Amino acid sequence: MPQLILLRHGQSQWNLENRFTGWWDVDVTEQGIEEAKAAGRLMKEKGIESDLCFTSLQSRAIKTLNLALEEMDRLWLPVEKNYRLNERHYGGLTGLNKQETRDKHGDEQVHIWRRSFDTPPPPMAADSEYQMTSDPRYAGIEVPATESLKDTIARVLPYWKSRIAPELQSGKRVLISAHGNSLRALVKHLSGISDDEITGLEIPTGQPIVYDLDESLNEKERYYLSER
Amino acid sequence: MPQLILLRHGQSQWNLENRFTGWWDVDVTEQGIEEAKAAGRLMKEKGIESDLCFTSLQSRAIKTLNLALEEMDRLWLPVEKNYRLNERHYGGLTGLNKQETRDKHGDEQVHIWRRSFDTPPPPMAADSEYQMTSDPRYAGIEVPATESLKDTIARVLPYWKSRIAPELQSGKRVLISAHGNSLRALVKHLSGISDDEITGLEIPTGQPIVYDLDESLNEKERYYLSER
Repeated sequence: MPQLILLRHGQSQWNLENRFTGWWDVDVTEQGIEEAKAAGRLMKEKGIESDLCFTSLQSRAIKTLNLALEEMDRLWLPVEKNYRLNERHYGGLTGLNKQETRDKHGDEQVHIWRRSFDTPPPPMAADSEYQMTSDPRYAGIEVPATESLKDTIARVLPYWKSRIAPELQSGKRVLISAHGNSLRALVKHLSGISDDEITGLEIPTGQPIVYDLDESLNEKERYYLSER
Repeated sequence: MPQLILLRHGQSQWNLENRFTGWWDVDVTEQGIEEAKAAGRLMKEKGIESDLCFTSLQSRAIKTLNLALEEMDRLWLPVEKNYRLNERHYGGLTGLNKQETRDKHGDEQVHIWRRSFDTPPPPMAADSEYQMTSDPRYAGIEVPATESLKDTIARVLPYWKSRIAPELQSGKRVLISAHGNSLRALVKHLSGISDDEITGLEIPTGQPIVYDLDESLNEKERYYLSER
């Protein structure tokens, strides 16, 4: 039976400061480190082994994975990193404090940007201090100027289909360390959640989510590992 | 110009305790962690970027790499792990303190085991507490019972030729985090060092070694990064 574990990175510095982060490469906090280690200890205790891992090109997800794997005594697992598992790109909101953004643009507008399925925030200015177009990790990749959740899903799913799903279907147990919105993309796809509902689905940091899947990779059961 | 960096893992617990380690999966010490971080900071300071990394299946090399990459702000680099970069398998000596082994077997015998090119130590007992034949990381791999340095080289070089050399020849800058003897195998090959000489060549922990190579991957220059 194919088994998939989803893990959202531990608390980041900008989670803590309540700022829109997106593709900006923010580190995890001390609490985030502890969350990642606790997730690893929990997976070990519950007998989760995994055969291979996928993560984004962002340090907070990679570091969370490394810390968890160390606790699982499985640092040796293969890990594939791809920008398609990155967080949703928050465009011009990147770096802004969420409360300040509400004060400036109004609650309703910020709610739309955060919770609309297909309305992206304004694009990131070409001269923004948070531009990542010249970051070497994205060489050869067209860095988006902004993304709606729909855009994020359209970026994540081809990677799921081409790289992750075939490994699960060949019997590998897979662990994915990623971000709130790239994980929403997977949960929407696997659990058949509607466009309206998915925008409100919260994925907590550092909480391994287990998917028991059937042969066609449809959800049989989904649960927090901590609850079993 | 192809560029290769070799990095031996930071001090391990059994380096500190002066025990034969081989394939046993010993963690790095606090000093080893600091060595790994210092190597990463040095590489960053000297403008070493690397495009991809190779390491063994042993935690001390993987963790050294992860810590160095974090200091280089390059946690996102692709990393390939393979048992062929593991340390030399020390057979029946695994776990023994080097001084105790000398007291028991005599200086000369231990000198032969450690410094002979082609004499392996006695094989590891099938019921040894240090057996790794059922370790899941080695599933599908024939775990050796013991290895001479010559055996180690014969294990390392096919991987060099099939996976690492082609990447260098395609223009990728490569960072390898590995072990005293798997790195000796590479240094012997790249620098044309004789069987007699290679057994005495010490590779210090946490010191990045730079190879500037020509198009055919012959050594043009080799130096410690700290000396430039």
